[in-house]
This record gives sequence, structure tokens and C-alpha cells, in this order.
Amino acid sequence: MTISSSQAQTEKNELFFNVLEERRSVRKYDNTAVISDEEIRELIAIATKAPSSSNLQPWRFIVVTDAELKAKLLPIAYNQEQVADCSAVIIVLADLEMYKKVDEIYSSAATAGYVTEELKDRMIANTTKQYMALPAERLKEIAVFDTGLVSMQLMLAARAKGYDTVPMGGYNRAQVVELFNINERYLPTLMLPIGKAATPAHPTTRLAVDQIAFFNEMK
Amino acid sequence: MTISSSQAQTEKNELFFNVLEERRSVRKYDNTAVISDEEIRELIAIATKAPSSSNLQPWRFIVVTDAELKAKLLPIAYNQEQVADCSAVIIVLADLEMYKKVDEIYSSAATAGYVTEELKDRMIANTTKQYMALPAERLKEIAVFDTGLVSMQLMLAARAKGYDTVPMGGYNRAQVVELFNINERYLPTLMLPIGKAATPAHPTTRLAVDQIAFFNEMK
Repeated sequence: MTISSSQAQTEKNELFFNVLEERRSVRKYDNTAVISDEEIRELIAIATKAPSSSNLQPWRFIVVTDAELKAKLLPIAYNQEQVADCSAVIIVLADLEMYKKVDEIYSSAATAGYVTEELKDRMIANTTKQYMALPAERLKEIAVFDTGLVSMQLMLAARAKGYDTVPMGGYNRAQVVELFNINERYLPTLMLPIGKAATPAHPTTRLAVDQIAFFNEMK
Repeated sequence: MTISSSQAQTEKNELFFNVLEERRSVRKYDNTAVISDEEIRELIAIATKAPSSSNLQPWRFIVVTDAELKAKLLPIAYNQEQVADCSAVIIVLADLEMYKKVDEIYSSAATAGYVTEELKDRMIANTTKQYMALPAERLKEIAVFDTGLVSMQLMLAARAKGYDTVPMGGYNRAQVVELFNINERYLPTLMLPIGKAATPAHPTTRLAVDQIAFFNEMK
């Protein structure tokens, strides 16, 4: 690497790390701010570049922008006002039967010329067999973990576009399932308000690296 | 926002989104490349800026840099060579009893002046009560999801620093637990080789946004 490209790389890194530093959980939103459906689609397109187990993409998103629906989310979210005041609430769902998409996903890779027809057929057969043999609890772990990956990219992409978010696990899951008539194939994981901050986030602390990372052994 | 700061924001966004685009799952590594312990600590410090449920940070990391230990991971990872050829393997663990850290975490926030002593005491009491009332399965979901969040930031931070990664769920979990004598409080979720690519990643496709995101209803 030349000195100038190394400098460019360093600058690029700093800009990148700024986004991670600037992402904070914002709880007070400007209730006049609007985010367009197109911007939300763009955020989801970026976020779903995240990796997933066997690329099965076990994530779905219910995007709530309708004011009446957001009002219905308020009691479901134990009256945490951010769900009503933000511009949109994205409910992230984990697909507990993700292997049912394998045909579609690997066929699209074949169409794009990324895998041969032969490899595609083998991948579909192997993946289906492998996932169908897993216990439901393990499938849930995979799907929940992968929704964590995509949710992180969603929060970061929102921040990079000038929006704030607050990841919420504290809501009545059964009532969300009922409100949207969600099939039991899908498990709501994250509720994510997105919007423009009205008040900055509270700062928080983190455990020191040496308390949580261990080299070549577990302490 | 002025025009020039808006332009700066746009450039910054593009640099940020480049990192997300450039992160690909790399399976062939340069087995002569070295990553220092200090660089790994820095990556983990950045990654753990991720949010977590009640800021309980239910993540731990076993960093494997020792060549003999990496060789032991090879059969555990079903002989996928990346675990031996990469510069380091980070095994991400979910803390299934994350509420046991609440005292330490909220005390650190009080010491930093972010919360009053009174609020700290209330948060510790409420959080402990709330989490201890949750069934083990729900605690696992929370911890697994949160390790997804931190793992995504870890992969992105690595890419921004010029390293590649490949998230692996396919390994023998019981053998990892045995090798490192991991307490049952901790569940291994991700195995993450980090290093310098020897061969570029395969491109992959994604489901279209309109197939996975639904506005104000579930389809």
C-alpha cells in the first residue's frame, strides 16, 4: 500500500468508526419528522447485506409508519413513547423455517451465474436435509442470531443516513403477533423505532475488554 | 444543514456504506498474516459499543491465536481450513446469566456520573428482578440476539481495518465447550476466523426488499 492510499484508508476508517461511536439509543423523538418508504427500503436493502447461516436470510420486517397503528403499538410497548413519536417502527421477525427459502435463494445465485446448476441442486438438497434435521430450538437460535446481525446493520445504516434508533426487546410479543396476525413461523425479535432525535441519548459505559476477552483460554 | 456539511455527510455515508458492501465471507486466508493481540483488543473494544438488552453486554470472546490451538479447532470445525489458516479465531459466547453483571455495569455508569446513586440502586434491583423472572429460553434468546449485534460490529470493524472474516455456525459446539472447559453459563454462538484474504469471497445474492419488508401489515 502506498503512503497516500494508506492515509486514505485511515481517513475512511475514522469516518466508519465515527458512525459506530455516534450510534446511541435515542428515546425522545421529533414527532414531526418523516422518513419516506423509499428511505426505509434503502436502509433494509443495505442492512440485509448482512451474512446469515447458509445465506438463508431468516429475517422479515414489518414497517409501521401509519399513525393509528403506531398508537396501537404504544400500550403493546408498555407506553414507551418512542414508538409513537418516532418516524417509523420496524419490527424484525425471525423466520424459524428459513430452510423453506433455500430453493429461491440458491436459484437466484444460479441465475446470477454465481453457482452452477449442478452445485445449486446439491446445495439445495444438502441444506434442506441439514436444517430439517435440526431441533426447533437450534433453528430458533440460528434465526434469532441472524436477526441480531441484520438489526445491527439496520441501526448503523440509519445512523449513517442521519437517523436515530433505539433497539427494544421490552414489549408484549403475543400482542404484536395478534395485531399483525403473524404466522407462528415468524418470531418477533426486535422492535426498532427510527426517527430524528429530539433529545440526545444517555451515555452508557461498557465492560473493559480484559474482562470479556480471553486469549487462548476461557477465564 | 449547510450545503457543504451536507456534502461532507454524503461522502461520509458513502465511505461507511462501502465497508458494509465490502464485507464478504472470506474462506481462503493468507496463513502468513499476523494480527496483533492489541489490534484484536481494539476491534473488540469497538464492537462492544453495540447496544444490548438493558446494557447487560451478554458477550464474551475467546480469541485463539495459538497455532496448536487453531489446529485443534480444525476437526471441531469439520476441517474447514479457514480456522487454521486465518490469523485469529474469535469464538463469541452468549452469557445466559447476564443479569449477574448488573451491579458492576450500573455501578460503572454511576462512577462515570451518568446515573445518580439512587437511580443506580433502583436499576439494579429492577433489572435483577425482571431478568430472574424470565424463563431460561427467553434469557437465551436475548443473549443470542445480543451476540448477533456485537458480532456484526466485529465483522464490520475488522473489514474497516483491512481484515476479512467468515461467520461460522457449523462447528461442534460440545467439543468447543470441552476444549476450553467453558462453564454452562456461556453458550458458544459464533466462530469467527479473522485474517487477510488469500482468495476473494464468492459473491452471493439477497432476497428483494419487497419480499421481506411489509408496510403496516404482515404478508
